[in-house]
Amino acid sequence: MIEYRNLRVALLGAGSVGAQVARLLLEHADELAARSGAGLELVGIAVRDLDAERDVELPKELFTTDAEALILGADIVIELMGGLEPARSYILKALESGADVITANKALLATHGPELFELAEQVGAQLYYEAAVGGAIPIIRPLRDSLAGDRVDRILGIVNGTTNYILDSMHSTGASFEQALAVATELGYAEADPTADIEGYDAAQKAAILASLAFHTRVAVGDVHREGITSITAEQIAAATKAGYVIKLLAICERITDAAGDEGVSVRVHPALVPEDHPLAAVHGANNAVFLHSLAAGDLMFYGAGAGGVQTASAVLGDVVSAARRHVVGGPGVAESAHADLAVLPIEQVHTRYQITLTVEDQPGVLAAIATEFSRHGVSVEAVEQSIQSHTAVQLTEVEPAGGHDEDAATATLVVVTHRAQEADLAATVAALEATPVVRSVASVLRVEGL
Amino acid sequence: MIEYRNLRVALLGAGSVGAQVARLLLEHADELAARSGAGLELVGIAVRDLDAERDVELPKELFTTDAEALILGADIVIELMGGLEPARSYILKALESGADVITANKALLATHGPELFELAEQVGAQLYYEAAVGGAIPIIRPLRDSLAGDRVDRILGIVNGTTNYILDSMHSTGASFEQALAVATELGYAEADPTADIEGYDAAQKAAILASLAFHTRVAVGDVHREGITSITAEQIAAATKAGYVIKLLAICERITDAAGDEGVSVRVHPALVPEDHPLAAVHGANNAVFLHSLAAGDLMFYGAGAGGVQTASAVLGDVVSAARRHVVGGPGVAESAHADLAVLPIEQVHTRYQITLTVEDQPGVLAAIATEFSRHGVSVEAVEQSIQSHTAVQLTEVEPAGGHDEDAATATLVVVTHRAQEADLAATVAALEATPVVRSVASVLRVEGL
Repeated sequence: MIEYRNLRVALLGAGSVGAQVARLLLEHADELAARSGAGLELVGIAVRDLDAERDVELPKELFTTDAEALILGADIVIELMGGLEPARSYILKALESGADVITANKALLATHGPELFELAEQVGAQLYYEAAVGGAIPIIRPLRDSLAGDRVDRILGIVNGTTNYILDSMHSTGASFEQALAVATELGYAEADPTADIEGYDAAQKAAILASLAFHTRVAVGDVHREGITSITAEQIAAATKAGYVIKLLAICERITDAAGDEGVSVRVHPALVPEDHPLAAVHGANNAVFLHSLAAGDLMFYGAGAGGVQTASAVLGDVVSAARRHVVGGPGVAESAHADLAVLPIEQVHTRYQITLTVEDQPGVLAAIATEFSRHGVSVEAVEQSIQSHTAVQLTEVEPAGGHDEDAATATLVVVTHRAQEADLAATVAALEATPVVRSVASVLRVEGL
Repeated sequence: MIEYRNLRVALLGAGSVGAQVARLLLEHADELAARSGAGLELVGIAVRDLDAERDVELPKELFTTDAEALILGADIVIELMGGLEPARSYILKALESGADVITANKALLATHGPELFELAEQVGAQLYYEAAVGGAIPIIRPLRDSLAGDRVDRILGIVNGTTNYILDSMHSTGASFEQALAVATELGYAEADPTADIEGYDAAQKAAILASLAFHTRVAVGDVHREGITSITAEQIAAATKAGYVIKLLAICERITDAAGDEGVSVRVHPALVPEDHPLAAVHGANNAVFLHSLAAGDLMFYGAGAGGVQTASAVLGDVVSAARRHVVGGPGVAESAHADLAVLPIEQVHTRYQITLTVEDQPGVLAAIATEFSRHGVSVEAVEQSIQSHTAVQLTEVEPAGGHDEDAATATLVVVTHRAQEADLAATVAALEATPVVRSVASVLRVEGL
């Protein structure tokens, strides 16, 4: 029997992830000690309510409401309480006392990350957060370490399981957003208040964390352009399928150049059309995946469970072992690097492809009128297709300029796919189309990614 | 301008990976210094032939044939020469001199890994090898660090790009193995002597490395059961497609129990049927992917380019930055852990599912005779299907026991899929089938994985 030095581990929070972390720490103590080179003694679990129900049966004597006292005696502090405060204060206190900190708190990192990383560097402690993005999927270490000698230029991430579950079930069942959300809620994939997921706030926090790491630049959640999935309709899903796409909520982080040609980054979260043969299109249910492109390595993808108590606990425990090894071997931690310090550019400067669906008068000259608006704003059209609206039988008689007039005109649906264009130009085009008399409405504008 | 301490980097070998590593070290010196916290000075490149052609134009003055002198003055030694000797001696010398070593040499690690890791631990140096498995795909760090708090129980890896390219093109074009190999050779996906790839030697080396890491157990390449893909026929591919499978060469590492119920590991490389909706089935061309299951994290997959000079260089440079950071912050390296020390069990103890294709006499009682052999050896049959052989028009008249005799009998093809069975029992069943009079031949035996 090997005798190990014991490290004191304090756990803050015993929710679905915290309870599993505590269980695994207790059940696999020997194995974890062998891997860490140190015993990992769970010295306490700080909670708000000692009598709350837990997912897992844990020894009563470990629980305490005095988080501060617990932190002060710990070598490693695991923060799984979530929220900005008091999590932020507790982490600062832990780092100040020299403890290494492990957190899965994406909201906190995306908001106060720089402050926390700076303090960690100052005191020579380490802040680990593998569980903050992609649940169980190892993505932080690969980005920080494995790709440290490469240059990541683009990340496309499915980083929110709830929205992927909803969109995937809309695709497979034809359900509306509301119906799919109701099922997701019933099955526990969506919370009672699903706002953070369906409006993209959760994904935006993760996008900020990924972009900061990949581009060595501080990106805060406020820098992230964010659109949710609440306005995605069953019609859009059906049209996407027909055109060979799936709709996914993507977190997109990319290097772009501004008008002056200077390098910057763009970070955005929005629903997008993804070609059905793209690896991300095959990410079903509540799974997550991060697809990235780097200069030397080319395309890489990381796939797995993006949430779940025990799955996320795997990532937390990986960090615990890393922290323990560092305690055993000594030496200061690796600081987060923000040396590149690139500008975060607004979405107007992004270039991508677009699919625009228009409801138009079914009359001669319509196509010409629409094409003119695209061309006038510098947006090049790759393809136009007419799709028949279900409630009207129409045909687009594109005979120019024959004198047929609109006698209480029928409507047609046009689907326009553009070449790569700048977001600002596309927005101007859409505004112009909305003011074009033959256009009844701009029914849908979706970005196309992953081509 | 920040002044960094300089680290002296020696490169051994300037082949397709080595030349790209040298180029990236020189071209991205500033960026790498910022990420490492130290300047990375490429002090020399040891080669056998100073005048050989290189993939990349590199400064002549860097080249030397005196590897030993180069090693002795270096902080970090990158070994990309391949082969067992003199690579082994050079790495031992480098570690002895206190340098950290980075290698992509899978053959060496799978053969002499324990000796190298032991010396590294003894002298407090570090041995990195992210590039040895999966080319650009980060898989070593995720296994070693991210999953350090979890328990990996199964790895299914597509770890050889050449064989994946060949099998994928057999599937998409209907080509024979020989035809697909010829194309792969012409396009540079297969080497002039393709033996190491198509016979599974390369994959077996990588399997040994993955298993050692995942199971904290020393697995040498000699412990790996190995079958190549040279006997895979166009008929097997067509039959697999029809049945909803693709054939992949898999490296499989799993925890199994022996007859006494003791835990051990099994490591094997062989072609296998993979269901077409499994994530590994979508890995096309020369790409690699490692799919794994662990107790807490569940299913994870890592996907990307498995070879290529510049892609593999990405993994090497990630290791260089890790080594440099360690030099800057101090402290001994993390040792490889073989604490679990599980027995490596022979393939006979593996349990999996099988698809067996038999050419049989088309006469009454055949099915009963065959079913008896399976049942006699304890192998449970899930499904039997008859498929008509192209060169004979036959029917399997399974009317029992009607007295029709074999008048120079026609043959039929039977495809049997089993439930999970032990390899030893399956082998005994196959031997018995071969000795069964109504069985003309056992045309194909394939394992089914990923269900």
